[in-house]
Parts: sequence; structure tokens; C-alpha cells
Amino acid sequence: MKDPFSPDEVKIAVIGGGTGSFTLLTALKTHTSRIAALVNMADDGGSTGQLRDELGVLPPGDVRQCLVALSNTPKLRDLFNYRFEEGSLEGHAFGNLFLTALEKMTGSFADGVELASEVLGITGVVEPMTHTPVTLIWTDKNGQEMRGEWQIANADFGDEPPALTLDPAGEISSRAAKAIEMADLVVIAPGNLYGSLAPALIVSGVGEALQKSKAVKLYVCNLMTKPGQTDGFTVNDFAAEIERLAGSEFLDAVIYNTEAPSPELMDRYGKEGEASVGFDDRTLSSQHYRAYGANLLSNKIWQNPNSSDPIASHRTLIRHNPHAVARAIMKAYKTEVRSRE
Amino acid sequence: MKDPFSPDEVKIAVIGGGTGSFTLLTALKTHTSRIAALVNMADDGGSTGQLRDELGVLPPGDVRQCLVALSNTPKLRDLFNYRFEEGSLEGHAFGNLFLTALEKMTGSFADGVELASEVLGITGVVEPMTHTPVTLIWTDKNGQEMRGEWQIANADFGDEPPALTLDPAGEISSRAAKAIEMADLVVIAPGNLYGSLAPALIVSGVGEALQKSKAVKLYVCNLMTKPGQTDGFTVNDFAAEIERLAGSEFLDAVIYNTEAPSPELMDRYGKEGEASVGFDDRTLSSQHYRAYGANLLSNKIWQNPNSSDPIASHRTLIRHNPHAVARAIMKAYKTEVRSRE
Repeated sequence: MKDPFSPDEVKIAVIGGGTGSFTLLTALKTHTSRIAALVNMADDGGSTGQLRDELGVLPPGDVRQCLVALSNTPKLRDLFNYRFEEGSLEGHAFGNLFLTALEKMTGSFADGVELASEVLGITGVVEPMTHTPVTLIWTDKNGQEMRGEWQIANADFGDEPPALTLDPAGEISSRAAKAIEMADLVVIAPGNLYGSLAPALIVSGVGEALQKSKAVKLYVCNLMTKPGQTDGFTVNDFAAEIERLAGSEFLDAVIYNTEAPSPELMDRYGKEGEASVGFDDRTLSSQHYRAYGANLLSNKIWQNPNSSDPIASHRTLIRHNPHAVARAIMKAYKTEVRSRE
Repeated sequence: MKDPFSPDEVKIAVIGGGTGSFTLLTALKTHTSRIAALVNMADDGGSTGQLRDELGVLPPGDVRQCLVALSNTPKLRDLFNYRFEEGSLEGHAFGNLFLTALEKMTGSFADGVELASEVLGITGVVEPMTHTPVTLIWTDKNGQEMRGEWQIANADFGDEPPALTLDPAGEISSRAAKAIEMADLVVIAPGNLYGSLAPALIVSGVGEALQKSKAVKLYVCNLMTKPGQTDGFTVNDFAAEIERLAGSEFLDAVIYNTEAPSPELMDRYGKEGEASVGFDDRTLSSQHYRAYGANLLSNKIWQNPNSSDPIASHRTLIRHNPHAVARAIMKAYKTEVRSRE
């Protein structure tokens, strides 16, 4: 089995999934080849009900997206998205067949994911946070349950932070625990807070592993709020939720964006109920973590060649600039290490 | 596209396919990561009529075997051999689905093969000798044609060396030509002379590329003769056939085995019409190439867990010791380089 880490380079464990994690991993791997991407296992065993990239160009599922991000060829994305067009294979996406074959061969989806890194010769490894297939559950204040990552990622929680659990509770996998323990740097990636990060952070044992690890522990905050979920959230609100979900005040540092997107873009996002994440220097300076602000915005025009919508196929989105984020992470890491000396 | 070679290490181009090539590549990659395995494209587009490993543990087809040999995980073999057991995918081998997806995605089997090295992150690259899908043809002395690699690999040629052609003639691919041109060392692997090596060597332009290349050019001779094809062949007969097929006297060196297999093993092979390849020091010393003899035999007991035949599942075979062959190759290479200085 591929070793998540070996000597000499900075060892980074990244917790996350989805687009935020994807762009971050793409850039981080140019700084080190020692990366373990720890992904949640909720709802990612099949081909339905998965979180899809808003651009529609990434394969569905956190696991596939992390594998593509750490691959050394951009063609892996095309291959995972490739659908057979004829015969008995018609309609099957190769990315699904690939993970299904590994799952059947090894006997579990989680074991298949571990093996995938090895078979694809990617930089670093993609590691399931738990080997137990789990379902994410939100229990509202009336005791009503909502089940499923996709459902919950798009739910309206009202005014209070959602009570989230896993069924079964799951247990951190020994390799994920080792990655967190041996890492020099743990990064909580930006992404869907309750849909992607929560099902990784609330796995039993993750909070303790984060608390215990001597790594520099750093959170890269989202750029935008999500209606019904993180309305009005500031940077420290996001950080507080990350720590609430993990059940421990483990963060050493938080990285956030200081640049305002163009008014035109803000308008468009505003119509969908999304706003940029605010920050207050005074509040941030009084937290137990250090806050690092920087211009993290991408100026890139994102294109989705697969979209039939002419506007969606050629639009500007508010996104992280992957290399700016990676540079900010490495800079904060060095400052944190120096401050410990 | 993955570069076949980059600076610093010995750059090796290996021409071959099948089990001989497989074992050789497995060992050579421990000496250098700069390997281009150049494989024939005859009959390797589908899932039928392919040369199968006699042990039944390698996936069918020269391309898949080379990919497995250069992979950094032994699990790629299991994955390529994995057959879906249920649903609409029942009976499909993953190795076929993988190459089919790459073929459909890129538009040709040869382009798919080139991409496979990149997607799997293997050591080195597997490179089609030609991008033209070709069929191997043997025209006998009566002008009768036999078509197909598998057929010809098992045909009886009688007393004379077979007249082999490709339909269409094919043309060496630019990347295969570049690999031969830039190599420090070209190795013609042991293997099925007419079934695997011929369809690579007779591709138009291969002989010229070999003639022109400044690499040390070396042939690793087979251990055993094949009834109806190479009966009574000695080491220099094999080398002469390699050069006849390529159409040029390009060899600098020939490596051959000097150790006799056990009488018991020889008996068993003898019953199937196979004998060990003889050598005569005087004849070999008068050739235009240098001949390097060494004990290249494997003592390993080969097992085939998939075989239902209790004897075949646990038998000793006359095989090359991959590491002894790789050491002999690297030693001969150094001697050849020194002799040129």
C-alpha cells in the first residue's frame, strides 16, 4: 500500500472534498508531493445523489475529484467523465466503473479508494476518513431527521447551527489517523461546510486526532456564504463551526480572502442569496488562532464546454485562485513553525 | 503527453511483448525509470484472439502486460484481470474496459495506449510501434496467406523462415522513432519470435531507426525453441532472424543463457517438442555482435492460482530470472559503452 508520507518534504493532510478541495490540491501538489487528501465516505459509493461541481466538468463525488486533482495528467478528468456510448456499457461513466471494480476487487469502497491512489500513480494519496459506509443525518429542533449528504448540503437550517450525526457513527481509519498524526501541516479545505466537511469532521476520533497532532492546523475559509446555511457568516463564524463540528478548538491559523469581488459579480451572486464572507480584524485578532488575510480571488473566466446554457458555458465565477491560496498556506505554515521555535 | 525520457538515467527502449518482455521490464525498471516499452499493434485492439500468458495470470495482450510490468503496484494486474460479476457489466474484464475507454476517448487504440502510461503513472511509457492497426500475414511458399498474430504465433512454418508482412504496412510512430533515436540502450526482449517480436520489427521504418540509432543495441535470446517455428535454433539463429525481420544488421550484443535446466524439466518440455536453445562459442565469437553468456535461469516455482488443473497450478517452468537478465543487460551495456570510448 502506498505510504502517505516519506521524509524530506512538508507533509500535508488535507481534509475536504468538492471544488474547493480540488483547486487547493491542484496547487498544493506543486509545493510538496507528500499529500494525503482525507475525504468523507458519506454517500459516495454509487453514482447517484452526489454533489456535482457547479461547472459540471469534474466527475461527481469527492473521491473522484481528489484523485483527479492529485493526478499528474489532466486527462484523468476526461477519462473519469467518459461515458460509454454503445453496447452493454452504454451510459456507464468510466469513473464509476473504475471505483466499482476496485470496490468489488477489495471488498469495500474504502479499501478501493485506498488502492486507487496506488493504481493511478497520483502525487500523494486519497484516503477515506473512515472505512465505515456512513449516512449524514440532520436532526432539526423538532426532532425530525433528514438523511443524506446531498439533501443536507442543500437544506435550509433556519437560524441555528445544524445538529449533524453519522449513521453509524463511523471510526477514523487507521491510515487517516496516521496521516493527521504524522503531518507537518493539516489543512481544512474550503468547501460545502455541512455537505462535504461535516461528514469528515464528525467521524468519531477525528476531533481527538486533530487535537493530539503536533501539525500546524489551518483552515482556509470559504469566499461566499450559502443561503439557508451560512447566511451572514463571517470568517470567525466559519472557523467556529469547523471547531464545533470537530468537537475541539484545534485551529492554529485561519486563512481568508480580503479582496472584494466586482460589484457586477456580487450582484449576480446576491440574487441567489449568496454574499461574500465578511471579516472583522478586531474580532479575528482576539481568537485563539492567528488569522492571515490575503487576496485569494481568481480572475479567471471559468468555462464549461459541456453546458448547453450559453451563459453558464462562459461565465465568471467567484473562485479561489489556487496558487494564491497555496502560497498563503505555505507562508502561514512557515510563520507558525517559526513562532513555535 | 508523458515524455519517454528525461536526463540523468540510462534511457532504455525495449522492443517486445508477452511474458519475456514482462519479466524483463519488471526488473529493468529497478535500474532506471527511463523506459519506453515499444509494442506491436497487431491484433491487440479487442478482447479476442490474443496471446495469453501461459500461466494465465497476466492480462491478455502485449499492451496490458507491459503496463502491468511498468506499474508501481502489483495490484494493477489484479485490476486488469478483474471481471465484473453482475449486472450489465457481467463478464467484462476491467483491463479491456480501461483500454476501450481510452480508445474511444482519444479516437484510436494507439492514442489510447500512449495515454494509458500517463493515466496510470507508470515508470516510463508504453508506446505503440505504429499508430496504424495492422494485421500480421504469413505467406507460405505456395503463396497461401495466413492472417492474424495469434494464428501465426502457433503455426507450423516447416523448414524455412516465414515470409511475414503487415496489412497495411504500417509506419513507425514518431514517438517510437524518437524513443529508439534517443535511447542509450535498445533491448530486443525475449518472447514469441514470430507472434510478438516480428509484428513490431517489420513495421516500416523500424529497421532504419535501429540502424541509425547510436544506442547500444542488444538482443536477449529466448531460452527454449518452439516446435514448428524455431526447432533446432541456436543463439545465433535467433539473432539472425531478429536482424532478418528488421532488415538490417543492427545488433551490437546478444545475451544468452548458459545454464542447462534440470533433466526432469527438459524431459517435460521435450515431450511438447521444445528444447533449450543451443550455443556454440566459436560461431558466436565470429559474429558482428558480441555475445554475452550467463546463467539466466530462474529457480522459482511458478504458481497459477487461477488454474483448475492441479498440476498446472503448481509447476516449475523454464523461465528467465528477471534480475539476472537485467544485471546481464546493464553489464553488457557498460562493456559496450567502454569499448566505444
